Amino acid sequence: MLKPLGNRVIIERKEQEQTTKSGIVLTDSAKEKSNEGIVVAVGTGRVLDNGEKVAPEVKEGDRVVFQEYAGSEVKRGDETYLILNVEDLLAIIED
Amino acid sequence: MLKPLGNRVIIERKEQEQTTKSGIVLTDSAKEKSNEGIVVAVGTGRVLDNGEKVAPEVKEGDRVVFQEYAGSEVKRGDETYLILNVEDLLAIIED
Amino acid sequence: MLKPLGNRVIIERKEQEQTTKSGIVLTDSAKEKSNEGIVVAVGTGRVLDNGEKVAPEVKEGDRVVFQEYAGSEVKRGDETYLILNVEDLLAIIED
Amino acid sequence: MLKPLGNRVIIERKEQEQTTKSGIVLTDSAKEKSNEGIVVAVGTGRVLDNGEKVAPEVKEGDRVVFQEYAGSEVKRGDETYLILNVEDLLAIIED
Amino acid sequence: MLKPLGNRVIIERKEQEQTTKSGIVLTDSAKEKSNEGIVVAVGTGRVLDNGEKVAPEVKEGDRVVFQEYAGSEVKRGDETYLILNVEDLLAIIED
Amino acid sequence: MLKPLGNRVIIERKEQEQTTKSGIVLTDSAKEKSNEGIVVAVGTGRVLDNGEKVAPEVKEGDRVVFQEYAGSEVKRGDETYLILNVEDLLAIIED
Amino acid sequence: MLKPLGNRVIIERKEQEQTTKSGIVLTDSAKEKSNEGIVVAVGTGRVLDNGEKVAPEVKEGDRVVFQEYAGSEVKRGDETYLILNVEDLLAIIED
Repeated sequence: MLKPLGNRVIIERKEQEQTTKSGIVLTDSAKEKSNEGIVVAVGTGRVLDNGEKVAPEVKEGDRVVFQEYAGSEVKRGDETYLILNVEDLLAIIED
Repeated sequence: MLKPLGNRVIIERKEQEQTTKSGIVLTDSAKEKSNEGIVVAVGTGRVLDNGEKVAPEVKEGDRVVFQEYAGSEVKRGDETYLILNVEDLLAIIED
Repeated sequence: MLKPLGNRVIIERKEQEQTTKSGIVLTDSAKEKSNEGIVVAVGTGRVLDNGEKVAPEVKEGDRVVFQEYAGSEVKRGDETYLILNVEDLLAIIED
Repeated sequence: MLKPLGNRVIIERKEQEQTTKSGIVLTDSAKEKSNEGIVVAVGTGRVLDNGEKVAPEVKEGDRVVFQEYAGSEVKRGDETYLILNVEDLLAIIED
Repeated sequence: MLKPLGNRVIIERKEQEQTTKSGIVLTDSAKEKSNEGIVVAVGTGRVLDNGEKVAPEVKEGDRVVFQEYAGSEVKRGDETYLILNVEDLLAIIED
Repeated sequence: MLKPLGNRVIIERKEQEQTTKSGIVLTDSAKEKSNEGIVVAVGTGRVLDNGEKVAPEVKEGDRVVFQEYAGSEVKRGDETYLILNVEDLLAIIED
Repeated sequence: MLKPLGNRVIIERKEQEQTTKSGIVLTDSAKEKSNEGIVVAVGTGRVLDNGEKVAPEVKEGDRVVFQEYAGSEVKRGDETYLILNVEDLLAIIED
């Protein structure tokens, strides 16, 4: 398990659709990376200049949209996770 | 539904005119993107260094002008939304 | 009507002289853009780190000089306005 | 008259010497611009993060040296003034 | 022994696997550097603008993931350590 | 006389040695500029974000070492002075 | 003697080994500069935004590792010292 530090969250990226609109199955290298995912862990937040801590606005299980090309990928076993700064999260997807 | 995080707002871009002044109908690729739109959702605002939160000055339904080339586009179904920082909003359009 | 947000003002640019010193009438493309104008609307100002708001030092109707190449142009009907940050205003022109 | 805004001052640049050491009279285009001048107007100063205003250390009539290439030139009638940030002033010249 | 200063931690990098998936043994120059390691020492933390000190969120013995290409390598005897800013630590690896 | 503004000091640069180790007398253009000098005037210091003023740590007559290539040169009569920010002073030379 | 100003320390760099592992004696130009040294003097520290002073964490005589390529070299007689910002010190070497 990964426990994010400070103002970070860990994201499991949503798989991109594996077929194009015309039904062609995409190989791995042809797939664009999605910028949607599920929050799997949340750090304790950032520390303000007055010493106060600001907890992130998201929680485990939230579906989120994030800034493209942001963050660092980390492999654990077969899974690849994305570690992002809270500021790189754009919106929560609600149903 | 998208719920914007922190100091962000979600915008539905105004469609550009589909015909030129001389009456020529523009194809999709020839259309410039407009920097006007409708606010469809507003985040909770930014946190000052003293811990206070500053609510955005706009509200749902406001027609706004925003900084060109700012923000991130996000697709939901058939719609494309723009997620902007509040600082990229320039003015409210009033009638 | 445009209502500027935050620390912004809306400016109606002063038309440049249409003739050169030697009396030649300039075409539109040969005219340099002036960096003088009239303030037509003023935002609520910027928020300091202690939460206080600082109202802009200018008011509607002020004639001002501003930083060249600053701001964003916005079209409303036949008029083109300039939306500037208050920091890009240099001086008020008094008679 | 120009009234500088915020943390700005208006400077009347000192004319450079019109002859070289060997006595050659310089044409306008051969003259380097001086970085000395007279303060002709002073803005209200800059606002600190705690809301306090810091008045500029110079006053009308002060002879000053300023950072080369800083500021914006503004024409009023036949005169060209320089609008500078207070931070671009280096020293007062005293006799 | 190295005692990290301020907001720094000292890391012993985890050795990368010495064989590829197909069983080929890698020479030293062919091995990529890992961005995982063990915290071996922790500095006193960073000083906020109000004078308060913020202790790092990690402790000796923690297994961590860190930002690639961050920090400075330091040799002590036969060992090479990595000195990182606390901000370059991304997550703690828990079992 | 020059009176430095804000967080600035005025320095009289120390002349570089006029002969090389092998005894060759250097012409003006071959001399490197020294980064040592004497403080000839001290500004009132910088203003902190809480409005407090921080007086410079040096005083008139101090011999100092400063950051190479920092500051602005100003001519007064036959003398050339260097105007530096206090932050560009590295150390006081004591005997 | 050099007395460092503000947030600076003065370092006497540790000489690099003069022979390679295979016993070849290195000429001066072939020696890499070490990033280890002894603290020979410590400044009064940096001033926080609330006016408080933060004393450096090192003292005279400490053996330290510092950021490569940081700081300014200063010659005093035959010695060359390195003047560093406290932030460029990475760790204290303890035995």
